[in-house]
Formats: sequence, C-alpha cells, structure tokens
Amino acid sequence: MQSRTAALGELAALLGDRLNRSQSDRDLHGRSESAFPEMPPDAVAYPETTAEVAALVRICARHGLPVIGWGAGTSLEGHALAPRGGVTVDFSRMNRVLDILPGDMLVRVQPGVTREALNTELRSTGLFFPVDPGANASIGGMTSTRASGTTAVRYGTMRQNVLALEVVLADGRIIRTGTRAPKSSTGYDLTALFVGAEGTLGLITEVTLKLHGQPEAVRAAVCAFDSMAGAVDAVIATIQSGIPMARIEFVDAVAAAGFNRISGAGWPDAPHLMLEFHGSERGVAEQIERFSEIAADFGAQGFRWAEQPEDRKALWAMRHNTYRAWLQIYPGARPITTDICVPISRLAEAVEETAAEIAASGIPGPIVGHAGDGNFHALLLPRAGDAQELALAQTLAGNMAERALRLGGTVSGEHGIGMGKTKYMRAEHAEGWDVMGRIKAALDPEGIMNPGKLVPGN
Amino acid sequence: MQSRTAALGELAALLGDRLNRSQSDRDLHGRSESAFPEMPPDAVAYPETTAEVAALVRICARHGLPVIGWGAGTSLEGHALAPRGGVTVDFSRMNRVLDILPGDMLVRVQPGVTREALNTELRSTGLFFPVDPGANASIGGMTSTRASGTTAVRYGTMRQNVLALEVVLADGRIIRTGTRAPKSSTGYDLTALFVGAEGTLGLITEVTLKLHGQPEAVRAAVCAFDSMAGAVDAVIATIQSGIPMARIEFVDAVAAAGFNRISGAGWPDAPHLMLEFHGSERGVAEQIERFSEIAADFGAQGFRWAEQPEDRKALWAMRHNTYRAWLQIYPGARPITTDICVPISRLAEAVEETAAEIAASGIPGPIVGHAGDGNFHALLLPRAGDAQELALAQTLAGNMAERALRLGGTVSGEHGIGMGKTKYMRAEHAEGWDVMGRIKAALDPEGIMNPGKLVPGN
Repeated sequence: MQSRTAALGELAALLGDRLNRSQSDRDLHGRSESAFPEMPPDAVAYPETTAEVAALVRICARHGLPVIGWGAGTSLEGHALAPRGGVTVDFSRMNRVLDILPGDMLVRVQPGVTREALNTELRSTGLFFPVDPGANASIGGMTSTRASGTTAVRYGTMRQNVLALEVVLADGRIIRTGTRAPKSSTGYDLTALFVGAEGTLGLITEVTLKLHGQPEAVRAAVCAFDSMAGAVDAVIATIQSGIPMARIEFVDAVAAAGFNRISGAGWPDAPHLMLEFHGSERGVAEQIERFSEIAADFGAQGFRWAEQPEDRKALWAMRHNTYRAWLQIYPGARPITTDICVPISRLAEAVEETAAEIAASGIPGPIVGHAGDGNFHALLLPRAGDAQELALAQTLAGNMAERALRLGGTVSGEHGIGMGKTKYMRAEHAEGWDVMGRIKAALDPEGIMNPGKLVPGN
Repeated sequence: MQSRTAALGELAALLGDRLNRSQSDRDLHGRSESAFPEMPPDAVAYPETTAEVAALVRICARHGLPVIGWGAGTSLEGHALAPRGGVTVDFSRMNRVLDILPGDMLVRVQPGVTREALNTELRSTGLFFPVDPGANASIGGMTSTRASGTTAVRYGTMRQNVLALEVVLADGRIIRTGTRAPKSSTGYDLTALFVGAEGTLGLITEVTLKLHGQPEAVRAAVCAFDSMAGAVDAVIATIQSGIPMARIEFVDAVAAAGFNRISGAGWPDAPHLMLEFHGSERGVAEQIERFSEIAADFGAQGFRWAEQPEDRKALWAMRHNTYRAWLQIYPGARPITTDICVPISRLAEAVEETAAEIAASGIPGPIVGHAGDGNFHALLLPRAGDAQELALAQTLAGNMAERALRLGGTVSGEHGIGMGKTKYMRAEHAEGWDVMGRIKAALDPEGIMNPGKLVPGN
C-alpha cells in the first residue's frame, strides 16, 4: 500500500495533472459496456508520448503497480477493468494519424485514434481502413482484442490488417515488431503475439495498419430465407464460388422482428442475410448476378437493394444498433451479450440450437452474426433484478460456449476473453493455455500488465 | 556423450529400424540446398505418429539431445542442419492428408505431405492450396519457415493460410492451437507463434490449412518494361486499383537474358513482369483489360499471353527453375541465393541499387521477385574455389540485407533465418530479438529444439 502511494506520487510527478485520481474519472474507467461489477483503478494516466508511457511503466514495474490500457472503453468482456487497482493508461491524448503511406497502402497511427476518425482522415486518399466492429473503437483497443466485425469476410480481422507495432514492455523497454515490408520471415511473429494479447504483455503505443483501396462501386441488399440452414448454405456456396463478399451478415427471425419494430424495416418475419458488394462497377454487377443465382437456389426471396449511400448507411446503422435497439424494446433488461465462432459447416446447426434454447427459456434473445466467418452473437435480455432470469441467461451463454467447442469452434470469435471468458480457456486450449501462461511469465514476470485477464492464475 | 549414447539407444528401442544411424542417411540430412558446411545429426528418426514424436522428444529432453525437424530438405538458409548433432526427425512417413473439409474449405494434413501431393489429392474437390514457394516443399517445412512464393500477393503466405496446428513441445507435451472456426480472439495467437518459428519451439505434427476455390478461369502473360521503376510503378498502381492479381512477378534484364538462353524465351533484353489472373471468365477478362491499361501507362510492351494450361505451366516452370537454369549457364559456380523484402514504394530503388552493385562486381547475379510483396531474390554466382569472388558475393548479400533495413524492410521475406541470417537479427529487431529469446527460454528451457538457429545465443 505504501508502495502504491509512492508509485502514484512518482506518476503524478511524471504526468502532472495528466494523472487523474478523481473519483469520477476512476469510476468512469472502472466500468464497461457489460454487466461486470465496477472495478476502478487507483488513477487514470493520460500520456502524450511513447517515452511517457515507457517512463510510466518503469515506475509501475518498480512498485508492482498494475497497468491497464484503455482505448475507447467499448470492450464487451471487461478487458479494461482494474480488479486489482493500479493505473489505467487512457490513450485518448495519443490519437494522431502519424503517417499516411499511400504507395505502400499503409498508415502509422497512435493507439488512441478511433477507426472513424482514421477513416475521416483517409477519405481524400482513395484508401480506407476496413475493419468494422460496429462500435467506434480505438485502433489500440481493436489491435489488443484482435477485433473484427462485419467486413472481416473480405478484408480480414486485425490479425490480417496489423503489419507492425511499437510496444512498451512490462519493464518499460520499447520494441518495434514488424517492418513496412508486406511480409517477413525473420523470427517469431511478435506482431501476431501482441495482437489479441489484451494488454497482458505490454502496451501498444503505435500501430502500422494495412489499408485498402476505396471500392469504385458499393451495393448493399437484404434478402429473406425460410430457414437459417438455407441462409447458411447460400453463404457457403457463395464463398466457395469465390464471390468476394464485402459483408455477408445474418439476422435471425427474432432479430428481424426487432428491426421491424424499431426501425420500421418492414421485413418478413424470417432469417435474413444482409449483404454488401465492393468492386468495380462491372465487377459488382457480376457479383450481384452470381450471388442472386446462388441465393435463389437456396430459397432467398424479397431482395431489397440499398441503392444510395444513405440507404446503405441506414441499413448498417440498423445492424450495428441491434444492442441499443433491443434495450429500447426491453428497457428493464440487464443485457448479456456473447459471441461464439464455429466452422461454417456447423453454423446453421449452432444458430438453430442456440435460437431454440433461447426461445424455450422465455428470455428475449436476438441472434445476429457474421455468416462468412461462422461467428455470431446472442443478445440475452433477462430482467434486471430477476436473479432467476439472470442465472438462466448466464446458463444460455455458457451453453453457447460449450456448443462452440463441441462443434469444433472457439468460445469467442471477436469479443475476446477479458474477465468474462477465462473460465472457458482450459476447455478450449487444454495445455495450450499453460503455454500462454509461460509466455506471460517470460515477458511480464511480475504480472503487472492487465492482471486478472486472459492467462491462467493471473 | 554417454548421455547421447543412452538417448540414441532409447530412441532405437522406440523406433526400431526407423531410427537410422547410417553414415549415408546422416550425411543426407546434414546437407542443405545452400553452401553451408555439412552438419549431420547423430541419427535420423522416421516417426509415424504424433505419439511417437512426443515419445521421441521426451527421450531427447531427458538427455538434452538436440531435435531437428526435416520436411523435404528444400530450405535455403540451413534450417535443418544439425550443428550440434542430435536427432533429425524426418516427417516423410507422416505424409497423409487426414481430412478434407470442403464445407469449411479446410484440410487437415500431416507435416510430411508436400504441396504438390496435397494439390493432387485436392484436384477433384474444386479446391486447392495456393501457397507456392517454387520447390515441392513439405507443408510442415513451409509452416515452420512461414513460406510464401509467387501467389502470396493474392492468397497470402503461410501466415494467412495456416488455421490450426498440433505441436509437440520441447517437453513432449502435445498441444493444439487454433480451431476449425475461421477466426478466434481467445488468447495469444499460438498458431502464429509456431508458424515461422523454424522448429525452435516445438515440432509441428499436424497442420490445418485454408483452401481456396479453383478459379474458373486462369490466364497468364508476360510483358516488358523500359525500366524496373516502370514495372514497379505499374505493380503499385495495379494493386491500389484493387485488381486481385494472382501472380505479379518481376524478372530483371539479367534474368530475362538467362531465360532466353536456357528456354529460348525470345524476350527483349529488359525487365519483365510475369502475371497470372484468376477469376470467373468475365472477371478475368475485366482484370486483363484494366491491368493492360495501367501497364500501358507505365510503358509496358510486348505482351505475350499463355492461353493454354501447358503454356502457363511452361512459363511458371521457367520462373521456378531460375536457380537450376543459371547453374547450367555457370556450371562452375557456387551459388549464393538470398532474399530481402522492402516496402513496395521502395522496391524499384532496392532492385536498381542491387542490380547496379551486382553488375559492377562482375559476378553474375540475376534478380527475380514477387513484386506485389516487395520481395526479391538475387542468385549470386561466384566461381567455386575463388575465395575473392566468394567473399565479394557474400558482401553483396550482406549489402542487400542492410539495404532492406535502410529502406524500412526486412532481411528475409520468405527464406527465413536458419543459420544464414542470425547475424542480421539484432539490426532488424533490436531488443525485439531478446523478446524472442525469452519466449524460446520459456518454451524450451534446455534449448534442445533446433539449436543454433534463429534466436540469440542459441
């Protein structure tokens, strides 16, 4: 405790009023988007440079004070909570786009820049950054959680789109991983190690991202299917035929009903696919023609095309706002959102089993997902204060995780582990989880980096 | 030494005549494709199951005997040499395709299967495995070296195409990394850690690979440019415009002259691009039209189209046989082949500087490369037995590595580190190399897995 006081004093000397110990700021950084208890840090730091981050970490290392990274606070598994106190490093002042490299289709950014701010800066370049988890997350947070979202089927997740990093290690040393060359085979893939490490191995202070050319033509559509199996089979056939779908999302009948209620979508009460096509004008026309043929073979009907940019925007806003929309329908709910990811061949089975179980429970629970990735989300809406419904919802979420593993998948496609899913790590990784623990111990022997998350016994 | 004898005795008891201690087999596994001295192991093991590999590693761990993985022996940086003796684990008896999963576009294979054998088995499925380093390498070796090759610009390297692994660790434990789901965010990316680890962290005993749909239409072509800068600028513009090139290779004027001499290619004495287009019939037609326009803007001329499959095959065979072809022209040479990878925006500069320096040296040295990846190879051909030429060639190779780093790139895009390039690791990775060392020490504290390669002080 004395050491903690000393550490905070040294941090205050380093950062001045950019070390905030106010109750309100600590509380703000002790909350998450999900239903975890509040776990505030002892202080919130707002560094402005990598050197400051390194100095900060060196102080924390000397005193054994936990260090938790904070991007935009949009994590769904409590990644940035401070269960053991410590200092939360809020990267909102390190939010610059450092260098746009159009010839290499790369951009170098600080971790605090959000994906929307980045794309605004890129608009005039003809390039864009495609990874879209829905929330306006920070690039540092997206990197640390290996985020993906609706466009991963075409453009990949953060795994594929982070080329290089600058990282402050647990002892304050600064390393650079990767280069600006498109590929490398010079040793362990440290970039991939830090992508998705959830801040448990170091703090990311700079990210080099791959960019993609803004497509000449974009078209979006929705269509309905009689069954989830039909929709998923259409997706599989589409991907196998090589149609480079930019988005291919599904929405179960429950979620579709919600869209109707909130947004007046006027959809039939059935599973839907939501689609986006990117390419040249002719390319998109061909994609649409080929997709429409395949979809028709699997019973698609009622195509609705979003011709104008504003229609497209409205369509995806509706999809991204599932969470808020359902909270409007069930204002008294305490939402539990979870995601699993399965082999695409098992997706229909996974969704149908999950939907049936949710329906039988009586708890409202729309399902939406990234069909091209085998990844889906359930938004479970037990009544706040109803312990029985809450426990039932948690059982449903647990059953989803077990279902994912039984079908050869993973307990999270994109939300990550944080504090929410460590309980499934042993089942998914067996002794591989111990390997993660050994790597953690090698790079952060004192366990100061984001303790209580991801690794065993942490 | 006593321990070594005991270990070999236990291994012989485990494997019977599948532990080969003959001089000829040891010598065979003590050589590489490159000009390293011979470094034979004490014995060569031919396991048939993962359980045997695990038992073998447990014996070696107990006795501190080095363990070196061996695929097809096509590595160019001495990855599979045995500088400290030990047992080389030859995976040629673990060469089965275990499971083709067409619905998930995946295949599960043993490490000893070669990429050509795999594609032969896949032929009737409509799917294929695209990564093509030229040599008929084994999948295990390609995974361990993070191989890539001519198609990486479209389909990615092994980094993007390995979804899951089974690995025997240095203590004989067996872990599985990844699942069959297309993505995951459940902890450290162990799959990526073992891909490219060159056997220094464990032995890969099973690989789950992503497959791709066989394209409906394939067309190939070559065209000439006045300068390397023109060729590279055409490549950059092509990629930025989103044309999904399947192959976009370059060949400098020296290499083109060699193709003419060996294969009667009849090309102009100039830099060339070698191209392949994959897609639907209409898609390929559009790609060709758009590429041709861009290429013409940058001075391309003399397009030659390979219309028939056999013409295409001959074209790529010529490209892949650069190495052997030049040895025919210079039968007395002791070849040194090296690769570097730079940001694409610096590729023309890197190639032109390298070509000029090679020309000034008087040593024959064609340059070929994967233009879409910023990756190129020089094949330096000093006279065998001419110490001065050999030293000069080594200086040229060293200058290439330094040039790569100066231009923001990496000392190897695809050949890897092995024994050949550890001397550049500090310059490329600085303290990141120590991080690799700490991971190595955490997972292989006794240093038995492929010692003498990749990591510091190993």
